[in-house]
Amino acid sequence: MTPWEKARRMVLEAVSPLGEEVEEIPAALRRILAEEVIAREAFPPRDRAAVDGYALCYRDTAEALPGLPSQLRVIGVVPAGDRASKKLAMGQALRIMTGAPLPDGADAVLKREDARLEGDCLLVTAPIPPGTHVIQAGREFQSGERVLEKGVLLGPSEIGLLASLGYSKVAVYRRPVAAILSIGDELVELGGGGTGVFNSNSYALAAQAAQAGALPLSLGITRDKVEDIQARMVQGLAADLLVTAGGSGGGDYDLVAEALQALEADIKFQGVALRPGKTTRFALKSGKPIFCLPGRPTAAFVAFEVLIRPAILAMMGHPRPFTPLLWAVAKREIQIRPGPPKFLPAKLFYQGDELGILPIDEGRGESLRSLAQADALAIIPEGTTVVKVGERIQVQLIKSFLS
Amino acid sequence: MTPWEKARRMVLEAVSPLGEEVEEIPAALRRILAEEVIAREAFPPRDRAAVDGYALCYRDTAEALPGLPSQLRVIGVVPAGDRASKKLAMGQALRIMTGAPLPDGADAVLKREDARLEGDCLLVTAPIPPGTHVIQAGREFQSGERVLEKGVLLGPSEIGLLASLGYSKVAVYRRPVAAILSIGDELVELGGGGTGVFNSNSYALAAQAAQAGALPLSLGITRDKVEDIQARMVQGLAADLLVTAGGSGGGDYDLVAEALQALEADIKFQGVALRPGKTTRFALKSGKPIFCLPGRPTAAFVAFEVLIRPAILAMMGHPRPFTPLLWAVAKREIQIRPGPPKFLPAKLFYQGDELGILPIDEGRGESLRSLAQADALAIIPEGTTVVKVGERIQVQLIKSFLS
Repeated sequence: MTPWEKARRMVLEAVSPLGEEVEEIPAALRRILAEEVIAREAFPPRDRAAVDGYALCYRDTAEALPGLPSQLRVIGVVPAGDRASKKLAMGQALRIMTGAPLPDGADAVLKREDARLEGDCLLVTAPIPPGTHVIQAGREFQSGERVLEKGVLLGPSEIGLLASLGYSKVAVYRRPVAAILSIGDELVELGGGGTGVFNSNSYALAAQAAQAGALPLSLGITRDKVEDIQARMVQGLAADLLVTAGGSGGGDYDLVAEALQALEADIKFQGVALRPGKTTRFALKSGKPIFCLPGRPTAAFVAFEVLIRPAILAMMGHPRPFTPLLWAVAKREIQIRPGPPKFLPAKLFYQGDELGILPIDEGRGESLRSLAQADALAIIPEGTTVVKVGERIQVQLIKSFLS
Repeated sequence: MTPWEKARRMVLEAVSPLGEEVEEIPAALRRILAEEVIAREAFPPRDRAAVDGYALCYRDTAEALPGLPSQLRVIGVVPAGDRASKKLAMGQALRIMTGAPLPDGADAVLKREDARLEGDCLLVTAPIPPGTHVIQAGREFQSGERVLEKGVLLGPSEIGLLASLGYSKVAVYRRPVAAILSIGDELVELGGGGTGVFNSNSYALAAQAAQAGALPLSLGITRDKVEDIQARMVQGLAADLLVTAGGSGGGDYDLVAEALQALEADIKFQGVALRPGKTTRFALKSGKPIFCLPGRPTAAFVAFEVLIRPAILAMMGHPRPFTPLLWAVAKREIQIRPGPPKFLPAKLFYQGDELGILPIDEGRGESLRSLAQADALAIIPEGTTVVKVGERIQVQLIKSFLS
C-alpha cells in the first residue's frame, strides 16, 4: 500500500492547472489568478489630505511665530469629491476634507483643531513643514508596480484591491468539471423505490467537489457490471477528472480494477495506507485523473479530502493545494487499533487559549453522522495505538473556521 | 462610542432568521437547516456482514470442536448487491460479501480466512456466537431518531447524511439579499473614465456578503447629496439588509447621518470603538438593518467582518453567528497608538506546533493590499500599546483555513 503522503504527491505530479479564462471580478471570487496584476497608475494618484483642515504652502508659514502669526486668506473649500483643480496663490489657504486631493500650490495641511480663524483669515502660529498631514501620491503603490501575483486565491480583499486598481475583469484558471459515479447493485436513487442503500456518495462527493471549487457533474449510479462501469468511465472522461465510489470493496467483486484494465488506464497506485480509504485507486487515462474510492461513505469522504481536494485546487491553479493543518491537544485518551495512519472525526474547541480536540464517539461505528458532528479529522500516525490526554496532534479541518 | 462587542450584540438582537424554503440537497450546501431531520427507518435497515465470509446460524455450530467440526453445506452466495432474500435452512451456509444483508436464518458470519472448505462443505471447528462479524440493523440510527438539528450548517458530510436517509429535499433558511451602496463624489465606476477614485467598496463588500452566504445586490454609486442618498436607501430597503460605504467620514459633510434622519430610521448606534471603522453606524428602518460604513476600504472591510458578517449568518439561521477566533503567538513586537481596539491585518503560520502571527508591515499605510496579504485580523485590545514577542493574541480569520 502506498503511504498517503506519497500517494498525494503522485496525484499532484500527475495534474496541472487547466486553461485560463477572463472573469468579471464579482464572478472571480474564490478563483485563482492566472496573471500578474500591475498597478496602471500610482495610488493614490495625487497627494491627499490625511485630516480635515486647511491646505496651505509651507513657504507662507515659514516665519510664523506664536506672537507673530502668518495670516492666510481662506479662499474656499476643497470637498473630498472635488475634481476641479483649485489653485493656491501666495498667502492663500483652502479648507480641505480628509481624502481630498491637495490643490496645486499646497504642500501641507494644518489640522482643523490647530487652526485659529478670524473671519476668512487663517492665523498660523508655527511653520507647517511640507508634507504635514499629507498622504503622498503613490504611497500604496507606484505606477507599474506588481500588486498581485499569479496563483493568488481571490477573496474579498483581493477583489477590492483589483477594483481599486480599476480592473473590472481578470484572468483566472478554469474550474475543473468533476464527474462523479456511484457503483453498486445495492444502491437506490433518492426518491427511487425498492429496498437497498440510498446513493449518498454522489451527493457528498459532489458537495466536497463544489466546496473545493470544482463543478460537480453527477453520472448517477451504475450496477456491478464491468462493461457498464467501463462505459460510464468513458463518459466521465469528458470531464476534467473522474471520481468513482464503490465496486472496489475487496471481496471477489473488484469490478473497478477490471474496468480500469479494460479501459487501458495507466494505474498509478492501488491501495493507500490510509484509514478509512485504503482501497483507493488512482489512474490516468489520456492524461485525465481517475480516482476510484471505496463505497463506504466515510472512506470515500476521507479519501476525497486527503487526495482529491488537493488535486482540484492544483487544477484550479493553486500553488499550495494542500489543506493547511492545525495542531490541537487531545482532551481525552484516544485508542486506535494498530495499522496505517487513521483520520479520525473530531470536534475542536478552545479551553482558554489552547485548541483542544475530542474524537467523536465511534461507539456506533464510523459513520457519516460522526463526520457531520466533526469539525476536523485528527491524523493519527502509522502504528500509534494510543494518544494520551495532553498530547498534540495534527488535524485537517473539514469545516471552515470562517463559518 | 459603543464598544464593538456591545455593538455586535445590539446588531444580533435586532436581526432574526428569515423565512424558510425547500431546497434540493445539492443546492442546500452552505445553507442552514430549518427543520429537524429524523431517520425514517433504521440504518442499516437490516443486519449486514461486517466481513467477507460465510453466513451461518449459531445453532448449527454449537457443538463444533477442532476434532469434530460441524459440517455446513454452502448453497450459494449473497453478493453485496443481492436484493432477493435468500434463506438458510438447518445445516446450510451462504458465502457473503462485506456489507451484504444477512440472509434469513443466519445470525453470524465466519470470516473467510477462518473457513475450511471441502468442496461445497464448510467445516467449522468452533462455535460461532450469534452476532459474530454482523453489523446490527439500526446501529447508526433507529427509525424515528433525530439525526440533524435545526440550525446546522449543511456541509458535504451533512449533505451525504441527508442523502443516506433518503432526503432529496430539505427545509433551509432563506439567504438574505444584501443591498450595497457606495457614496462619494470622488468615486468613479470601473471602466468609467475621468479622474477620481475607483469604486472598490461595492465589489469588496459584495464579495464579503457572498462569502458570508448572502446574495449581494449592488446599488452602484451615489453622489454626496442627502436627497440622492436617502432615495437610494429607500430603494435598498427592498432588500433584507442595506450596507452603505462612504459619506460618513467626519468633516462637515456627514450626509449619511442626515439621510438616516430624513428617513426617520431608528438609529441604534453611531460610532463604534473599533479601529479601523469607528464611524460605523447601525440603524433600523421598518425592521430592516441599515449599516453605514466608512468610505475608507480597509475600515469598511473590517467593520463588515466584525458587525455585518454575524448579522448575515444570524439572518440565515445560524445559531452561533460569530466568526470563531484563533489564538496565535506574536512573532515580532507590535506597537500600536493607544486608543480603541484595533484589528490589524496579519499573516498566520506554524513554527513547529505553534501558530505564529506577523502583522503586515503597515509602513505604506493601512490598505486593501495589506488585507490581501493577510490571513487574519489580530485583535489588539483597547489601550494596548505594545504586544511583546511571544505574547498570545486572538485573531479573526479573513481567509478560510480550508483553502
